Amino acid sequence: MSPSSPLSRLCLHTITTKPWSTEQCISRYAAAGVRGITFWRYNLEGRSPEVVGRQAREAGLEVVSLCRGGFFPGRTAAERQHSVDDNRRCIEQAKDLGAPLIVLVCGAVPGQSLVESRKQIADGIAAILPEAEAAGVKLGIEPLHPMYADDRSAVNTLKQANEICDALGSPASLGIAADVYHIWWDPDLESQIHRTAQAKRLFAFHLCDWKTPTTDFLNDRGLMGEGCIPISVISQWVDATGYTGMREVEIFSNRYWSMDQSEWLSCIMKSYQELYA
Amino acid sequence: MSPSSPLSRLCLHTITTKPWSTEQCISRYAAAGVRGITFWRYNLEGRSPEVVGRQAREAGLEVVSLCRGGFFPGRTAAERQHSVDDNRRCIEQAKDLGAPLIVLVCGAVPGQSLVESRKQIADGIAAILPEAEAAGVKLGIEPLHPMYADDRSAVNTLKQANEICDALGSPASLGIAADVYHIWWDPDLESQIHRTAQAKRLFAFHLCDWKTPTTDFLNDRGLMGEGCIPISVISQWVDATGYTGMREVEIFSNRYWSMDQSEWLSCIMKSYQELYA
Repeated sequence: MSPSSPLSRLCLHTITTKPWSTEQCISRYAAAGVRGITFWRYNLEGRSPEVVGRQAREAGLEVVSLCRGGFFPGRTAAERQHSVDDNRRCIEQAKDLGAPLIVLVCGAVPGQSLVESRKQIADGIAAILPEAEAAGVKLGIEPLHPMYADDRSAVNTLKQANEICDALGSPASLGIAADVYHIWWDPDLESQIHRTAQAKRLFAFHLCDWKTPTTDFLNDRGLMGEGCIPISVISQWVDATGYTGMREVEIFSNRYWSMDQSEWLSCIMKSYQELYA
Repeated sequence: MSPSSPLSRLCLHTITTKPWSTEQCISRYAAAGVRGITFWRYNLEGRSPEVVGRQAREAGLEVVSLCRGGFFPGRTAAERQHSVDDNRRCIEQAKDLGAPLIVLVCGAVPGQSLVESRKQIADGIAAILPEAEAAGVKLGIEPLHPMYADDRSAVNTLKQANEICDALGSPASLGIAADVYHIWWDPDLESQIHRTAQAKRLFAFHLCDWKTPTTDFLNDRGLMGEGCIPISVISQWVDATGYTGMREVEIFSNRYWSMDQSEWLSCIMKSYQELYA
């Protein structure tokens, strides 16, 4: 594959083919011509992160990131400390895996004010940043769609994610994971992508699509091209900033998980290649 | 009931008790001490709007608004003209009903850019404003949650709604319907409520709650108090602007529609009175 082939920037999140084991993801992705892999933490259960990382690299895959840390807010100090401790374990796993980035789903507590949750998120990130820096692992805040503001993330726009990075003094290890599913509707999207990249904190770019109708809040994401997200336009905005990193396909879908996963992977490859033809 | 009783500001949307007929809504709401009623257009099917309006007023109810106009964007000029024509019929209905306000769910076309859809929305509103003004009927843009940006509304924040009002020259007949379900997550909510009221265009305030988990994109709204929306805080922001209008309970819920509707109405009255005790 030539370095300029669009496939050279294709990464898959293992959760996209959730029925496959860690080992199946590695071998099948590599065989299909996928270039990068983002592991989810469940992939490491009962396994050595070092071994998993080595297997991936030996198969020719770049380990792009580990999903996911975060969930910092909590009602009590003990809950928040529990989260900080878990994020520290996640940093150790990423280091051992050889993943340069942890994606943060920041968290929210239903009924707690979003302002307070964002403060707790900033505090949590500040608490783990020294360990991340020491481990050579970056942290990427992923803004989540406002429909997840109740219990998954109080960070719902690129602007809010940038504000947290700014408030923490713009450390080089802290940046943003931009997922089209969460941010496509944002009227400030183009300018905020630009701002993110200008601040050297555009760490990841995730792809899927928004189906009409969407029938499940979590697991009914679409394959690129079958929904309403202007993925080409957003991709052009991202590339125009000088971003040359991976395009990561991350699709939660009960429908696609029920398919033969080899066929599903073929659909993904076809969709990606049509998108970046 | 004293004028200062919180109940003096309680309005129900008929869709909240969808199993009831138009006539049942009128008689049951009035008997329960509800003060205002917002009709949905299905309430007028096979009926004379004048008669329905008179029945409501004779029962002691204020007719607050008619839901809903809008859905302006379309792929073709013919589709958009069809929508304008339907909105003109809606204005006639509102006038005959004696409803001073039409709530606009502005519309969106999956795959069409949101910028283009917002332009079509502004064009559609501009087209019907003369008829609305002549009829003495106001138009209230209701920003919808970003999870409806695919096919229900390209207007997803108070800021965007205000921008459309500004762009059309701030006509006195054009304003905004603020529904906590759609806007609670917005980091600019307090300042945008203030801006809306300052521009004398806060025309309506809708209540319900956001359940965790929410299991249906349309019909799983919560009763005030059972979700995560800081309704008291938002209500205080609204009242602090000098807003003295109705608080309109609008709850789409398969779960509640399957209940005995008299019991459901009692739940609503209890929840509202606890909220504004």
